[in-house]
This record gives sequence, structure tokens and C-alpha cells, in this order.
Amino acid sequence: MLKALVWDGSALELLDQTRLPLEKEYVTCRSYRDVGDAIRTMKVRGAPAIGISAAYGMVLASREFHAGERAVYIERLREAARDLTAARPTAVNLAWAVGKMLDVALGCPDWCRIPEVMEAAARETEEEDVEANRQIGRNGASLLGDPVTVLTHCNAGALATAGYGTALGIVRAAVEQGKRVHVFADETRPYLQGARLTAFELVEDGIPVTLITDNVAGYVMSLGKVDCVIVGADRIAANGDVANKIGTYSVAVLAKENGIPFYVAAPVSTLDLACATGRDIPIEERDPREVVEILGHRVAPQHVAVFNPAFDVTPARYVTAIITERGVARPPYRESLKEMAEVEHSK
Amino acid sequence: MLKALVWDGSALELLDQTRLPLEKEYVTCRSYRDVGDAIRTMKVRGAPAIGISAAYGMVLASREFHAGERAVYIERLREAARDLTAARPTAVNLAWAVGKMLDVALGCPDWCRIPEVMEAAARETEEEDVEANRQIGRNGASLLGDPVTVLTHCNAGALATAGYGTALGIVRAAVEQGKRVHVFADETRPYLQGARLTAFELVEDGIPVTLITDNVAGYVMSLGKVDCVIVGADRIAANGDVANKIGTYSVAVLAKENGIPFYVAAPVSTLDLACATGRDIPIEERDPREVVEILGHRVAPQHVAVFNPAFDVTPARYVTAIITERGVARPPYRESLKEMAEVEHSK
Repeated sequence: MLKALVWDGSALELLDQTRLPLEKEYVTCRSYRDVGDAIRTMKVRGAPAIGISAAYGMVLASREFHAGERAVYIERLREAARDLTAARPTAVNLAWAVGKMLDVALGCPDWCRIPEVMEAAARETEEEDVEANRQIGRNGASLLGDPVTVLTHCNAGALATAGYGTALGIVRAAVEQGKRVHVFADETRPYLQGARLTAFELVEDGIPVTLITDNVAGYVMSLGKVDCVIVGADRIAANGDVANKIGTYSVAVLAKENGIPFYVAAPVSTLDLACATGRDIPIEERDPREVVEILGHRVAPQHVAVFNPAFDVTPARYVTAIITERGVARPPYRESLKEMAEVEHSK
Repeated sequence: MLKALVWDGSALELLDQTRLPLEKEYVTCRSYRDVGDAIRTMKVRGAPAIGISAAYGMVLASREFHAGERAVYIERLREAARDLTAARPTAVNLAWAVGKMLDVALGCPDWCRIPEVMEAAARETEEEDVEANRQIGRNGASLLGDPVTVLTHCNAGALATAGYGTALGIVRAAVEQGKRVHVFADETRPYLQGARLTAFELVEDGIPVTLITDNVAGYVMSLGKVDCVIVGADRIAANGDVANKIGTYSVAVLAKENGIPFYVAAPVSTLDLACATGRDIPIEERDPREVVEILGHRVAPQHVAVFNPAFDVTPARYVTAIITERGVARPPYRESLKEMAEVEHSK
């Protein structure tokens, strides 16, 4: 499986996900600004992957600005952190990873060693993500029957993470356990992460996948063809409300209406207990051109207004369980998620 | 407003809806086979529009085969009727219009006059459709508040009919009554009828419209931004189950979940009381290339399986009312639709 990001010790290579699946090209980020641009333009996407990319962006900043006074240095690192965090507002993993890197810098007594310590921390974040995904996979796979048909929305796969994936990590773990898994992949307009990335990952891995337009998700559920839904998350509020790719709310409502479990798979770093509910989560709106142009070709009339939110919020009442690397949280989420976060703090 | 179809007395000119909104070109159908091809390839689409096109296709057949014995002639007309009806299986208007034209031929005592009588019947069908749509518009507009925001899926507009439209006919009638109407148009993958046709019609008419991807429909409902949903229909079963463009079922479930009325607008010719429920309605599956290629450009990996149904069935329990030219049918539909159909028979 292609990796979404590769740190080569001096630069961050990002697989250009805007060009998949037809072209497999990496872009080289030599500065934190390059990383910010790649996140903004969605060359790299997926909450965990943009978090880790931003962590390496902070490493690049720590090298670029490593001169002069400590106070000035730290101020410039803070500026880089603000810039990277602002690249995309909804996924909390970005702020989480950047904040973690700043803490590492601030906590390092030896000024000379800050870049080196930050690089070690970024590598560790990357490795921990893959391990978290494998654990999410094991935790989630135990919930699946055999055979099982899973519907997923957007791409919460290897390409959205440092590797293995969250929602698709559960699919991979189930396959590794010998379960017969079939996946319906929503194409996920406007950016087509399902058609371009999820279908690509699963075809590459030889896992049976059927691509559908987003309009077909409800229909296949109503036909009794779906056993469960598994999606990723960009931010999870303290009450269990989930911000994820636009259209996730619709899938969740349709799953509930059809009596199908709706699972969210995400690392603990996606929890944001500072957000009481989904109403506190900022929802990014993106360029109307993502909707009115496809592959650079205009599909809609000139002068038409467009509303293009990149995410929506699924209220906790539609979420059957939230699967993290620390276990499976069930309602009431205010208690179960707090418990999961506290395990983290007590580490 | 451009007309979807123009009968010039010797040929049927069809606006090529695969090329809208950027190119406005008509294709000329000089034989019933040309008409069948145009229906199959969706140059003309929309249940009423394909019915009327097929009626003119029968006129072309009646001229082409007008020689020899009456029995042979009628048999060739039946062949043309079967061919046209098979062009698309779900919309009942196609079978309805073709059957009506055959009845006209069979009922004409003067062999010489059959083509002429059929042409008159086809013209009448076209004119009646526009009048039916205006009446649907009046019947539906009275249900709307002021101001009102309507969400619609696919294109049930002037381009889907002989003119004025069914769902968009209600929007037009409300605007004519001075109501302030704003429309959310789902883009409607894979064929993008919402982006290419509904947005185009409304922009041309100066009616405020916001284009959204299908994934946004649920989200705008959850934000309280939608007052009602209005869609067209391709076939309505005796119990009120509605076959319409894929994704309609999802929109209906989302409307119910958010307490939003879900209206279906269609002429009585869309009722098929011979279908007891939606399970009896054949659902057309179309070429996977509609999903994996957009404007001729591949967006998905090679070798991925695709499920591409063109329609789905919305169970009657999600339908607030069915608005026809004869009035507004409410549940229980088995009674209210039967009554509406009987008014037609007694005419």
C-alpha cells in the first residue's frame, strides 16, 4: 500500500491525493509553508494524516528558525503553529499534533537539541498512529459478523492516516481474522475520496468493494444489503457528536432508519472534550469550484450560488459506538468518552 | 425557457440534455428508432418528456410503415411500441403514452387517416402535459408558505416535461403568486441533472437557487434551512410507493427525520395502479461508466465493481402528499390515488 506521507529526514514527501488513483506522485515539502499549502489544497487529507504532516511541518519550522534568541525562536514556532492549525479548521488532530510539538519545544531545556527532539516526537507520533489504527482495527473487527457487508463514506483508510486506516483498519483487521468482508464505498462528492481513494485502497489490497454514488447508500440499506456502517471522524465532541465528511449525517440517519449499526472509528486524538457538543465544532466551507467544476470541467451554469461545507455533524443519538485504540465507547458518551480521555492523561 | 422537445410536423427535435448547460443543441429524430436511441442515451429524460417523445416516435413509425395490409401495419406499429417502451423500464409514462398512441391507431376506422390522427393525438398529449403541469403548480403552490425554501432532487422541471415542470412547476407557480421562493438543488449524481438542468432552469428564470452536492441535503435540513421537499416521480404504485431518481429515498428519510414535508409532484399518467407496491416497479440499472467516468475522465481505479441503479423506491409512509393535476392526494394512498385515477376514467 502506498504511504500518504514519508519523512526522509530532511523533507516531507506527500502522496498527492488530488491526483489519485490515476497518477501516483509525491510532492516534496521543504518548509512548514509547503506543508500548510499541501494541507489546504488537500494533497494530504484525513484527520490523522494532516495531524502528522503538520507535526513534520513543525520540525521543518524548528530547523528553519533555529537561530538567535530562544524567545524569538519560540515566537516564530508559535507563528508556524498558528499557520498550520489554520490550514483546515474542522479536524482537531491538526491542532492536537501541532500543540504537542510546541509542548515538546517548550519542554526541552537544551536549546540546541529542540529540532532533534521535535523530530523524534514527530516520528513517534507517526508510529503511534499506525499502532493505534491496528488496535482500532482489532477492537472494531470483533464487532463484525462473518460474512459482513460494511458501508463506508469518504476515506478513513491508510491514505487518511500514517497507515492501515481507522474505518478501513477495521475492515483490514476483519479480513486478517479470516472474515469475509464486502465493502460498499460511497463515492463522496465533491472530492470523490470514496471513488478515488477508498476504492483504490481496497482494490489494491484485494478486498471486495463495490463503488456507489452517495445517492445509492440509502437504497442499498433499504434493500437489506448492509450489515453495518463504519466511518472515520474529524472531531468528536464531549457528548459524542461527530464531525466528519459532509454526507456522514445522512448516512447515519439512513442507518438508524434501517436498524443498521453506525460505528465511528477514530484515535483518541480526535476527541475534543473542550467542545461540549457538535455545535461548538467549526465547519469548514470550501471553494464552490469543487462543486461546479469536476476535473477542471464546468458542470453547472454560470452565476449559480453554491453551498459547499466540507463536513457535517452527526448527533450522538445516531452513533451506535465510537471505536478507539483504547476500546469501544458506548452511550452515554459524556461518561464513556471522558473515561477514555482520562486513561490517556494517566499514561 | 428552452423546450425539451419540438415537433416540427415531420421530425422531432430534442434538446440534447447530455450537453447542457454549456451547449444548447438539438438533435433531429426522423424515425422512431432515433427517438428510442435518444431516450436510451438520455438525450431526452424525465418521465413526462420521454412519454411525449415516444408518442411522436409512434407518429414517425405510423408514417414509415404506412403501406400494405392493415394487419401488417398494425403489427409493425406494435413492434415500434415494444421497442420504444423497452428504451427505459422504470418510468411508466413511456408505456402509457405509447399504449395511448396504439389505442388511437387501433380505434381509427379509416386506415388512410391513422398517421394524421396519431399526430393529432401526440400534439394533444404534449399540450395536455403543459396544462397538467400548470394545474399541478397551482395545486402545489397553495401548500407553500411565504417565504419558503424548497429542496429538490434531480430535475422535474420544464426540461423533464413538455414545459413548465412538475416539482419546478410548483416553484414557478409560487413565484407567479408573488411568493419568495429559494430552492436548494441537489446536484444528483451520477448524471448531475440537478447541477446541469435544475440549476440551469432556475438561473435562466431568475429564481434564487443554491446548488449543493447530494451529501449536503441532510445537513441543510438539520440546520433548519429547508421548509419542504418537492420531487417528481417516474412511477407511483397503488399504495403510494414512489419510484424516482436514485437518492430520492434518502432525501425522504432525511425529511421525515427532520419533520419536513415531503411532496411528490406528478401527472396522473405517472400512477400505475397495476403495481400494488413499489416492489412491483422495475428498477433500471445503468452503465457503470456513468459512475467511474465523469465527462469522459476516469475518476475511479480500474477493475472496481459498481452498482448503478437509476432509481429507487420511496415507501409511501415517507410521502406527505402526492400533487397531481387533479388535486392533492393524502394518505391512505390506496384510496386517494384510486379516486384520482377514477376521475380520469370517468372523463
